[in-house]
Amino acid sequence: MTTATLSVSEICLAAREASRGLATVDRAAKDAALEAIAVALINRTPEILAQNAIDMEAGHQAGLSTALLDRLELNPQRIAAMADGVREVIALKDPVGECIEEISRPNGLRIRKVTVALGVVAVVYEARPNVTIDAAALAVKSGNAIVLRGSSAAAHSNAILAAVASEAIASAGLPEAAISLVAGGGRDELKELATQDSIVDIIIPRGGESLKAALSAVATVPVIYAASGNCHIYVHSDADLSAAKAIILNAKTQRPGVCNAAETLLVHRDIAAEFLPQTLGALAEAGVELRVDSRARALAPDLANSTVEAIDEDWEREFLDLILAVAVVDSEQEAINHINRHGSGHSEAIITTDPEVGQRFQLGVDAACVYVNASTRFTDGFEFGMGAEIGISTQKLHARGPIGLSELCTYKYLVDGDGQVRP
Amino acid sequence: MTTATLSVSEICLAAREASRGLATVDRAAKDAALEAIAVALINRTPEILAQNAIDMEAGHQAGLSTALLDRLELNPQRIAAMADGVREVIALKDPVGECIEEISRPNGLRIRKVTVALGVVAVVYEARPNVTIDAAALAVKSGNAIVLRGSSAAAHSNAILAAVASEAIASAGLPEAAISLVAGGGRDELKELATQDSIVDIIIPRGGESLKAALSAVATVPVIYAASGNCHIYVHSDADLSAAKAIILNAKTQRPGVCNAAETLLVHRDIAAEFLPQTLGALAEAGVELRVDSRARALAPDLANSTVEAIDEDWEREFLDLILAVAVVDSEQEAINHINRHGSGHSEAIITTDPEVGQRFQLGVDAACVYVNASTRFTDGFEFGMGAEIGISTQKLHARGPIGLSELCTYKYLVDGDGQVRP
Repeated sequence: MTTATLSVSEICLAAREASRGLATVDRAAKDAALEAIAVALINRTPEILAQNAIDMEAGHQAGLSTALLDRLELNPQRIAAMADGVREVIALKDPVGECIEEISRPNGLRIRKVTVALGVVAVVYEARPNVTIDAAALAVKSGNAIVLRGSSAAAHSNAILAAVASEAIASAGLPEAAISLVAGGGRDELKELATQDSIVDIIIPRGGESLKAALSAVATVPVIYAASGNCHIYVHSDADLSAAKAIILNAKTQRPGVCNAAETLLVHRDIAAEFLPQTLGALAEAGVELRVDSRARALAPDLANSTVEAIDEDWEREFLDLILAVAVVDSEQEAINHINRHGSGHSEAIITTDPEVGQRFQLGVDAACVYVNASTRFTDGFEFGMGAEIGISTQKLHARGPIGLSELCTYKYLVDGDGQVRP
Repeated sequence: MTTATLSVSEICLAAREASRGLATVDRAAKDAALEAIAVALINRTPEILAQNAIDMEAGHQAGLSTALLDRLELNPQRIAAMADGVREVIALKDPVGECIEEISRPNGLRIRKVTVALGVVAVVYEARPNVTIDAAALAVKSGNAIVLRGSSAAAHSNAILAAVASEAIASAGLPEAAISLVAGGGRDELKELATQDSIVDIIIPRGGESLKAALSAVATVPVIYAASGNCHIYVHSDADLSAAKAIILNAKTQRPGVCNAAETLLVHRDIAAEFLPQTLGALAEAGVELRVDSRARALAPDLANSTVEAIDEDWEREFLDLILAVAVVDSEQEAINHINRHGSGHSEAIITTDPEVGQRFQLGVDAACVYVNASTRFTDGFEFGMGAEIGISTQKLHARGPIGLSELCTYKYLVDGDGQVRP
């Protein structure tokens, strides 16, 4: 929707109105609207690139880093990939209208608990413009109106992408206001968005800790944080050490900048002397900076030059980089305690050959995803078979783990009677 | 737990610690602890009555209303009823450890989505002391530690009840700190409790709008409001008018002080002339004060003395009393729009003989429970077959409708592999 002249609250009210219509639209109509978005992205590629060029030029002038400019840049291949992403969402099943539970009561009442759209979903995100389309597609499929608030660095790119998407769904008969973008990227707009109680049903921020802090200070709308991951790999005394080595190397180095990468390695004392020197050597060779506790350091004297002594803060850090904290623990329970104290409740793994030990770890560790003998890097909507997601929640309420189509829904109870009154 | 000397944050930390142990306890141990509570309530009745007498005496001196004193008063029958309530919770199935979904991935990963306790649940409530036991029993059964914060008027009663319950579960081998009571009833304690992020997992207030306002201003812990109900009955043009009359009489008068009682009656214009005079007459006879719009008033000239003209605020009010707002509408869609604009998303009903009209109403109305041909008074954990509940949520996130054992749980993903790493 063209929203440049509307206030945040006007945009949200229009989205609320649009959400009423969208909530009861059937799958065919939603999929047709998504296909219209995919087609429009390809057809309007020149317009999108022209607007993106304005952001890129401003980014160059503002001295944005190469990494940020790369995140910001669009090209025909990236736009085609967005269109493909929309078509992947078309292929997912409709999350709305599923009967989760059916209860027949002795008095003849029939109660069905049925999934329905949440209503209005707001997504707050940083530079990458493709989130505009990814999030909009998930919202349309789940019958929600979406209010997007990107960063000012991507303002022109986001505006044209949101316009392309909302005009496309309007051409397919859905309300144009079901997809809209808040124009300003400032803290005032963020606060106004985060306080639209009973108009916006949920805010999902995708971004770092500063965005989280800014939101939690002001939000009265419920927030689900697609939050940070301080993930651990614990190698138990009976572990297959070659599997353990492969898993920690994968979890740390395959893509270190993401939330499901490992940040701390915990090793049982009984196998530490055998496991640590070779594994730390391989990690160091892969370019990983190692912050190790004194026990681990003593076991790998050859690596004295490749390691530094860990400080307390290292156990809390999400490095998002080729840095790993390493500690030796005396028991499985000490590993569980360490993880529950320092972890962020994202993804945690144990390497063990004893299924009972694995099960106890899965029960005892308080996190969204608890692995036995696998890399934490699998925590992801696609890897879980759920399809596209908006992020990974480390909260316990409503959505824990990947936030996909089902998590963008709530439920209601439909109760059918034939005149029942309460005695 | 004896908590008089501990600060709110110390109580919460002890509860968090206790919750780790409780989360993995099996059903038999939890049920045994609940049985110990039921037995202790009976055995320690004299102590409980002695402490309650102190609150009653203070209440008399403070000039509490008869209604409030009645809510506060305990006697052997009421204590026995609490014990019975605990035994009803024993009979409910364990909500923890249920596999909601199982996914096998092509790479051999097995992913199970399993229900687990939330961790630490805080319940904030007003005078009635039995909530202490009801809420504690639900928490123990769902593997959660609970922090209770009652009103100062019931301080002695709540303290002895919490002590009886926590000592009973300790005697059965569960951590005593799994049930504790915040001593002070002031706003400072409320604020401290509501800001224990990452220690307390959820706060459930049971109380009026002032408690809700006090909490939403300060809470950083997620809150689920067991909130107010502005419930509607809409009588469609094809309704069975005698069923409609029985339902509105039941929904308004059977127990007017509760959240699932009806507050507004909407009537389709085509049957208003036939339906309204007799139904309004019956309601007036039952002692209901009628606040009617001008169209309805014109149709019931004989009732001019029993009705007053509705003002705008009447459509928004949860009267919780023998008062009913009444309006004539031109269409089913106007009724849906009225409800979505003015309702609180609790319980809404249509009376119609056309299943398609009923279905459209159920789809279009945005509320926790949407009825066709039944009284809204059935929105209740027991009436829904879920057993005891802490309240009715009008929120859309996590829990909508009755907040029972399942809603006191979250889930985690347990992922089992044999060495998988991400390519």
